[in-house]
Amino acid sequence: MVISSKFLDALTPSSIRSITAKIRDKAKDGIQVVSFAGGLPSKEFFPLEDLRRITDQVFEEEGGEAIQYAASDGYDPLRQYLVEFMKRYQVNNIDYKNILITSGAQQGLAYLSKGMIEPGSVVIVENPSYPGALDTFRSYGAEIVGVSMDDDGMKMDVLEQMLQQQHKKVAFIYTIADFQNPTGRCMSIERRKKLVELAETYDTFVVEDGPYSLISFDGQVMPAIKSFDTYGRVIYSGSTSKTIAPGLRIGWLIADHESITKLVYLKMRDDLQVNNIAQRQVYHYLKDCDFDGHLKTVIDVYRRRRDVMAEAVRASFPEGTRVILPGGGLFMWVDLPEGTDALEMFDFVFQKNIAYVPGQFFCCDGSGKNAMRLNFSTTGEEDIARCIPILGEMIKQYLKK
Amino acid sequence: MVISSKFLDALTPSSIRSITAKIRDKAKDGIQVVSFAGGLPSKEFFPLEDLRRITDQVFEEEGGEAIQYAASDGYDPLRQYLVEFMKRYQVNNIDYKNILITSGAQQGLAYLSKGMIEPGSVVIVENPSYPGALDTFRSYGAEIVGVSMDDDGMKMDVLEQMLQQQHKKVAFIYTIADFQNPTGRCMSIERRKKLVELAETYDTFVVEDGPYSLISFDGQVMPAIKSFDTYGRVIYSGSTSKTIAPGLRIGWLIADHESITKLVYLKMRDDLQVNNIAQRQVYHYLKDCDFDGHLKTVIDVYRRRRDVMAEAVRASFPEGTRVILPGGGLFMWVDLPEGTDALEMFDFVFQKNIAYVPGQFFCCDGSGKNAMRLNFSTTGEEDIARCIPILGEMIKQYLKK
Repeated sequence: MVISSKFLDALTPSSIRSITAKIRDKAKDGIQVVSFAGGLPSKEFFPLEDLRRITDQVFEEEGGEAIQYAASDGYDPLRQYLVEFMKRYQVNNIDYKNILITSGAQQGLAYLSKGMIEPGSVVIVENPSYPGALDTFRSYGAEIVGVSMDDDGMKMDVLEQMLQQQHKKVAFIYTIADFQNPTGRCMSIERRKKLVELAETYDTFVVEDGPYSLISFDGQVMPAIKSFDTYGRVIYSGSTSKTIAPGLRIGWLIADHESITKLVYLKMRDDLQVNNIAQRQVYHYLKDCDFDGHLKTVIDVYRRRRDVMAEAVRASFPEGTRVILPGGGLFMWVDLPEGTDALEMFDFVFQKNIAYVPGQFFCCDGSGKNAMRLNFSTTGEEDIARCIPILGEMIKQYLKK
Repeated sequence: MVISSKFLDALTPSSIRSITAKIRDKAKDGIQVVSFAGGLPSKEFFPLEDLRRITDQVFEEEGGEAIQYAASDGYDPLRQYLVEFMKRYQVNNIDYKNILITSGAQQGLAYLSKGMIEPGSVVIVENPSYPGALDTFRSYGAEIVGVSMDDDGMKMDVLEQMLQQQHKKVAFIYTIADFQNPTGRCMSIERRKKLVELAETYDTFVVEDGPYSLISFDGQVMPAIKSFDTYGRVIYSGSTSKTIAPGLRIGWLIADHESITKLVYLKMRDDLQVNNIAQRQVYHYLKDCDFDGHLKTVIDVYRRRRDVMAEAVRASFPEGTRVILPGGGLFMWVDLPEGTDALEMFDFVFQKNIAYVPGQFFCCDGSGKNAMRLNFSTTGEEDIARCIPILGEMIKQYLKK
């Protein structure tokens, strides 16, 4: 007997995870796919030795307390440390009670969706945007509306017009302001300020998702939108999945005290608390280890991989291709010649054991057909240099068909 | 600006966690409370050395993979091992695809609530029952209806009458069949079979919550209700929070393949996956370490503590007190003389730095006023022997007032 409800029956597998499944099926047959499809950081560079030492130390020093039930709002030393950590983004006016620790940033987005989206709510997003967020917003009942972008990020004039004309309640405006997934673009400072003003004027919120902010290839870290927020209109979502390791599942939300309290009550219902050891691993790693050195290593690797990829795409992709060169993050967005259908083309390319994510998966309005997202963080330079030309050749062949 | 919605604004702190907060406040003033209020296992007996060794081994053997993104349904070796593990409860007809790993059993209950409770749904529970479950069911919109119990557990004749007369949809019947929280009672085998039949006849489901089943003082483990389920009407919820350690946050749900698939889609939206290392810690601990020896140690400790508590309650509580002597688990349920209001009495007793949970917190119908739940797993025998008589004395004083 299968469980059933309107909510449950409307759920489908995440679009990107369906590609992952195809890759796993080939792996089972012993075929290794070179995947530019993932959103993963590179596991060769995870700070394993440090984490191993920290974990041992936590068991040694804290004993049973380290694996007993704990507080729903999170491990206080981590929350207190994150107050300091947020100064990297010029977020200064918070204390630890403004912070809720979550099981990864995705859980934070889910809590906000559950808590803020009501029947008939609209969520405004950048178009294109992160499919995992779009899927979650939709699953909790939001109608998603996209705002087009240029090199300075979400277009504020388009957003304002949309807010003016919107008859439904706008639960929040979702943005990945730094090295956006999938385009790699950054929102300008002027627009960050404008966005806060618009949220205040039109009585809504901004959800700022910041997983990639520190993965900046020139070392420059932008001030968070939250840093310009004098009204309490911005909810910041942080994560160490891209900078330390995703399997630890540590994320956090920053909002005013009262909103955090409500979200803590939600956490009490939903899973009580986050894994104790992971909270301690992240706390001690950030505080006691060479996080900045680690970051530098990873950034250097990713920058080189980006450069190799960009060069290979320019050299091998068909005429009419446009690449956005990202200043950080994990992804490169490629617009292919008009009329290309990257989703339809997927299986043709996949014959060569190469995978990417079709642009449509990121777009809430059916656009993005002629685009693809390429991840450059998980594939080594040699494989990038070898496989991007094959991908380029396959696209050309496909277009000739 | 505070976030707001009908759902969010209806949430309140969990009732038991409000007592925990009172205890913490005293601790901040340097006052140690002897708490019989918690639902915690005893942290002195957590298998720290084994877990430490396992964690080290996982880092050694698996490297970065152990903290990379992973599958939403769970770590396959753990799922496969749980298929074997469930044979302890005579659950034989499942494979690993019937199992979803969750961040603690509480998350499993939340997923089932989100997925199965629709507006106007009823959830039927034992009265009294676990407040954390009741809070979650209510938060997702269920009307809760309680069925009275006797020494053989939930009364099936009362349940059947309720199902017959129910005009609303019964999302599921929730039961803690073994060493129930809070009464410590076990459901008889005859009633387990009857419950499955009733779920089939009245087209609903049973959610069987089994955290305490292995903490059996005479070593006997009952067959799960799930073991009698030939219709796919029983969803089993498991946990290692009470038998290994709660801070690891490992639980699991067992249901038919298609239901599990839907729940996996929900997990993709909600937090992607469970912490990788915790899944491996539990897997290796169950498979490679002396779990049964550990269980025996814990059971021996808890049994002695129960005996000391029962004796002290009988010797010191006022005439008219009735105690249910639990055959396992962590809790003792005490009915005080008629007319006692254990909630009102709480602060009077708390003056002596002793805490318990008032019976009302467990009851969905305002009953349980003259009852209290006492936890015997976290307090040593000496403290139990010293403090239960003080508690008894305070109750007597309170009743004289």
